Amino acid sequence: MSQTTEVNPDLVMERAKCNFNVLEVTHLIDGGEQNTLQRKKIENIALNDGAWKDPIGEEHMTPKEKYENSVRKTCIYGSIVKNELAELSGMESFGMNFLAVRRTADAFFKEVTPLLQQFGQFVPTILGQCTPEQLSCWLPKALGLKIIGTYAQTELGHGTFIRGLETTATYDPETEEFVLHSPTLSSYKWWAGGLGKTVNYCIVVAQLYTKGECHGTYPFMVPIRDEDTHMPLPGIKVGEIGPKMGYNTGDNGFLAFNNYRIPRENMLMKHAQVLKDGTYVKVARHGKLTYGTMVFVRVVLVSDAAFNLAKACTIAVRYSAIRRQSRPRPEEPEPQVLDYATQQHKLFIAIATAHAFQLCSVWLWDSYNVVLAQMKDGNTDTLTEFHALSSGMKAISTSDSAQLIEQCRHACGGHGYMISSGIPNLYNYVTATRTLEGDYTVLLLQTARFLVKAYEQAEAKKPLTPSVAYLAHAFSGRKTTWDSSPDGIIRSFQALAAGKIAACVRNIRKRMQAGLSQVDAWEMSTIQLVAAAEAHSRAVIADTYRREIVRLTANSSPNVKAVMEQLTILYLYYWALERTGDLLMYTSVSEKDLVDLQEAYEELLLKIRPNAVGLVDAFDLRDEILHSTLGSYDGRVYERLMEEALKSPLNKEPVNQAHFKYLKPLIQGKL
Amino acid sequence: MSQTTEVNPDLVMERAKCNFNVLEVTHLIDGGEQNTLQRKKIENIALNDGAWKDPIGEEHMTPKEKYENSVRKTCIYGSIVKNELAELSGMESFGMNFLAVRRTADAFFKEVTPLLQQFGQFVPTILGQCTPEQLSCWLPKALGLKIIGTYAQTELGHGTFIRGLETTATYDPETEEFVLHSPTLSSYKWWAGGLGKTVNYCIVVAQLYTKGECHGTYPFMVPIRDEDTHMPLPGIKVGEIGPKMGYNTGDNGFLAFNNYRIPRENMLMKHAQVLKDGTYVKVARHGKLTYGTMVFVRVVLVSDAAFNLAKACTIAVRYSAIRRQSRPRPEEPEPQVLDYATQQHKLFIAIATAHAFQLCSVWLWDSYNVVLAQMKDGNTDTLTEFHALSSGMKAISTSDSAQLIEQCRHACGGHGYMISSGIPNLYNYVTATRTLEGDYTVLLLQTARFLVKAYEQAEAKKPLTPSVAYLAHAFSGRKTTWDSSPDGIIRSFQALAAGKIAACVRNIRKRMQAGLSQVDAWEMSTIQLVAAAEAHSRAVIADTYRREIVRLTANSSPNVKAVMEQLTILYLYYWALERTGDLLMYTSVSEKDLVDLQEAYEELLLKIRPNAVGLVDAFDLRDEILHSTLGSYDGRVYERLMEEALKSPLNKEPVNQAHFKYLKPLIQGKL
Repeated sequence: MSQTTEVNPDLVMERAKCNFNVLEVTHLIDGGEQNTLQRKKIENIALNDGAWKDPIGEEHMTPKEKYENSVRKTCIYGSIVKNELAELSGMESFGMNFLAVRRTADAFFKEVTPLLQQFGQFVPTILGQCTPEQLSCWLPKALGLKIIGTYAQTELGHGTFIRGLETTATYDPETEEFVLHSPTLSSYKWWAGGLGKTVNYCIVVAQLYTKGECHGTYPFMVPIRDEDTHMPLPGIKVGEIGPKMGYNTGDNGFLAFNNYRIPRENMLMKHAQVLKDGTYVKVARHGKLTYGTMVFVRVVLVSDAAFNLAKACTIAVRYSAIRRQSRPRPEEPEPQVLDYATQQHKLFIAIATAHAFQLCSVWLWDSYNVVLAQMKDGNTDTLTEFHALSSGMKAISTSDSAQLIEQCRHACGGHGYMISSGIPNLYNYVTATRTLEGDYTVLLLQTARFLVKAYEQAEAKKPLTPSVAYLAHAFSGRKTTWDSSPDGIIRSFQALAAGKIAACVRNIRKRMQAGLSQVDAWEMSTIQLVAAAEAHSRAVIADTYRREIVRLTANSSPNVKAVMEQLTILYLYYWALERTGDLLMYTSVSEKDLVDLQEAYEELLLKIRPNAVGLVDAFDLRDEILHSTLGSYDGRVYERLMEEALKSPLNKEPVNQAHFKYLKPLIQGKL
Repeated sequence: MSQTTEVNPDLVMERAKCNFNVLEVTHLIDGGEQNTLQRKKIENIALNDGAWKDPIGEEHMTPKEKYENSVRKTCIYGSIVKNELAELSGMESFGMNFLAVRRTADAFFKEVTPLLQQFGQFVPTILGQCTPEQLSCWLPKALGLKIIGTYAQTELGHGTFIRGLETTATYDPETEEFVLHSPTLSSYKWWAGGLGKTVNYCIVVAQLYTKGECHGTYPFMVPIRDEDTHMPLPGIKVGEIGPKMGYNTGDNGFLAFNNYRIPRENMLMKHAQVLKDGTYVKVARHGKLTYGTMVFVRVVLVSDAAFNLAKACTIAVRYSAIRRQSRPRPEEPEPQVLDYATQQHKLFIAIATAHAFQLCSVWLWDSYNVVLAQMKDGNTDTLTEFHALSSGMKAISTSDSAQLIEQCRHACGGHGYMISSGIPNLYNYVTATRTLEGDYTVLLLQTARFLVKAYEQAEAKKPLTPSVAYLAHAFSGRKTTWDSSPDGIIRSFQALAAGKIAACVRNIRKRMQAGLSQVDAWEMSTIQLVAAAEAHSRAVIADTYRREIVRLTANSSPNVKAVMEQLTILYLYYWALERTGDLLMYTSVSEKDLVDLQEAYEELLLKIRPNAVGLVDAFDLRDEILHSTLGSYDGRVYERLMEEALKSPLNKEPVNQAHFKYLKPLIQGKL
């Protein structure tokens, strides 16, 4: 908020109207004043010399130029992180410092850096899958960028179902090598970030064959390009997969092997080994321990969903404060569009949701650390629960954020459709995370599997883990009493999750009694199972959001407490009103209750209205990170739109050559 | 379907399984066998010589190169239309021939041609707003492409609210000229397609001032570039607005005037005139007659929504038939993902919706012609109704199609995210149409205004127009009886629309009784008014779809009749299950009924499953128009993905220069 240019008077007015201390909410979102100070320090170091700037906007480049420009910036950014932020970076833990450093990258990369996978998957996999000797060999090289790597699991024809991967790694005891091979086109590795042109190493997941037997998939450290010339090595076919909706600066690649040999030692052998003679040895270790990287990535994705949604709301709310439209009262000027109830309905839920997901991501990470501690004591039940929780939260947060980002864009009318608004890039990024690292439907079905088991435990009066404790009440035979207090609504959300899970179990049993196999009965119930898992996840998110806000605002000033409370209630009302059918099915809610709830929701929008700009200011997103003509702190929307337009290469010459080459002959009838 | 390459065996199997005559359904969608034959003839002429091909994929170009390439193709396409399709084009009417010609453009332009507005708005406005003398002057020039034009109404700061436009046209009787002026930055014209670099004429909407008085907005024919040099004329500031989510080949532009003079005769004077001495004369004529162009555009947008959704389902269904995933039954191979209920749930509603919107667009156009005939008899009531209908249908069809296109993309997993899948371009196109020519929320509020008036008429026992006839039953005081037959569900949809409208009216009255002005009471109820208008529009669409299918399949073969019937029922079930809360509020539906409905819905998916590929084949979309690696008729998905990847310029050289320029120094620690 250090901009010194003139601020749009509407935004000045909005900021004067805000009744709470914006900085206090910033501290709350950051997790404390210290974190905010640290974050600002990091941002000042990373952003203040303008190294993130592009010679021309990336949106005017070809994908190839974008890639090259992104590599250029990666090196600048990398050296800032290495030389100036090393101490502050907090790479060792998912904490606010780590996030703050990570988020300064958004100033450099509107899409993604080709080195994302180096630290997102290559290093974590080395950490999680190597023996100590392997670790001491590869980790320093990877951390010191002596080797540039990525992680290639997905194949052209195989994603979710890892057992279906076709790439083979066959052990040859004569040479003590693994022979990597891609037997079909559908076995080509596909998607890995940085694989196309950037990396020289790749961790490849392949079916392990030794002594004529397949032992399932394992990771292998594979050099793919010459460390000196960077040329693909013989036996390697590698390239870039072509343009995508987003991530275009990330050179996602394909990779195929033609009987390509690597030393035996290049199998990552923490969990299983192949001895020199080809003997396969499984190292006894709980498979669930390999969750680490996956969980970390999920926590980051939930946090990213929150962060990018916060950007979209900041843009849309500020724009809605300066945009004026229509004249319902002829004697008055056109009102700010933020004054329209329909606009508030689109935007305020987005603010609340950004808070909810941010708090959920922190809670998820803290919970995971608790789980890890419990596992050391041999308790793995909570890990199963945690897996279901993180699956559901990843699915819902990425999906809801993507949808709400689009809602923010729609709220900006035509101008939201401009790339310079910044919102299309946010959508393209977040919608990808809905699919990657576990598709929405697949993850919710995993959560559903846990829920059905938990239901059976509840039925058998066995103990339940906390997130499904509510299932104990699922057998009372009567509907949960509706009560419009926050806790009452959360109980109702749990009741409808319980009701939906129970309905699924009934369906599955009914279908099995009718002669279907368990597999078929499950399959036929999957539409409802997804809905049940969604309901459960929403109940957990709502509960977590509410609980965390109550805890975090315990000592806040009254107005901060009030506005944070309003947002949590808004979130609960919104989702109750989105699920009236379920509430009528599974709780005692009456039609009158729902009419009252709608009215209360509309009144709440009016209460939040004066604080809306303050609320998005509290996200404290620097203009450099927002990249938005519509959302800058100073609200110079039309000026910025015009400035950006003038940067278009088409505007560098008054007449485009296409006129003389094509149009003029057409006009003159010569075509 | 003339491809001769080898077809993926899964698609061969699917096609063998289809139990109905695909061609018969194609005829049905086209509106008769004659139309299909004509369409194929048009496609053969326009597409068969491959003139639509690009030297390199547009996705690899800069926006500037894309524009230039698009102008090149515009001229080729234009000459094909002019020289070879003139007779068949049917430009004079919105009929199947017109559509067929228009749709062949999709082979040439993945986004849009810069000349879209020439025929989309420039010519129609000339037709609708000129005096006979003006018409004889400008129409031949515009039709013969002697002048290239567009239509500029929206300004940087003004969209929906036309009265708020700032551009002025002040009459100067001394020179008998209008002086056009842009007093502020927010008054700059913004968005008009082709305005940036392509057109030399522009119809500009400005506030008319004469004798010191403002008479509201009127259109003016304005030369903006020299007809010889194509240079912007003195007093004109014109350029391109920069990259957007889509439409990037359309050089949308900005335009500002610095006291720019045009002859008096350049005001389009059909509806009002300014005499030589500056006297303003309003020509007596019903304002509603100017609806013509707008209605035409809306019909095209509903039809486009259907057509683009048909493309997305074709892609996603064919891909889902060849994609195999997971192995729920260990003894069997991985099933086609189309066998999963969750996948069917995502895709089959998209097929039904494409049919529904296509039939609605044709019905809308036919209705409009009926309305026009009635207006000649002086009856304008039906025009008001028609306006509400077309607003609602435009809003719902563009919004639902965009959302379902995304759903189809999600159903294609990661590969849907590739530009080469074709789906991202479809989304970018259709989501724009949700905003342009009347934003979703704004249009539904217009429909709502009609509904509230209709409700008051029903209350006063006055006659009602057909689409709101159901409101007559809104005062019975009891809930509509649920009945799961198609007609029963449609009645329920009407009942819940009626219930929602009644609730809105009650709210508005309650708020007015509490002292609010009508304007404020309306404004506070807008969230619910939008929901009511949505419910009404959905009821109309469902009713129209059902009625038209029953009519069109009266003489169809039994299996065609059956599958078409299944799709309409699927559509009704789907939306009933999406609106359980409303049904429980406004009809007698029981919880048991809803459980049964869910089960019936799931069984219906299974029934449709074997015909799914046949159904999308029946859309008969040529590969050249689909532009999809995932959706081609032959199902060579992985081959095509790979072929496209290899076309990426990044793959033209084994090592990218960025490696030596940036990465190698980084690796060597020199950065």
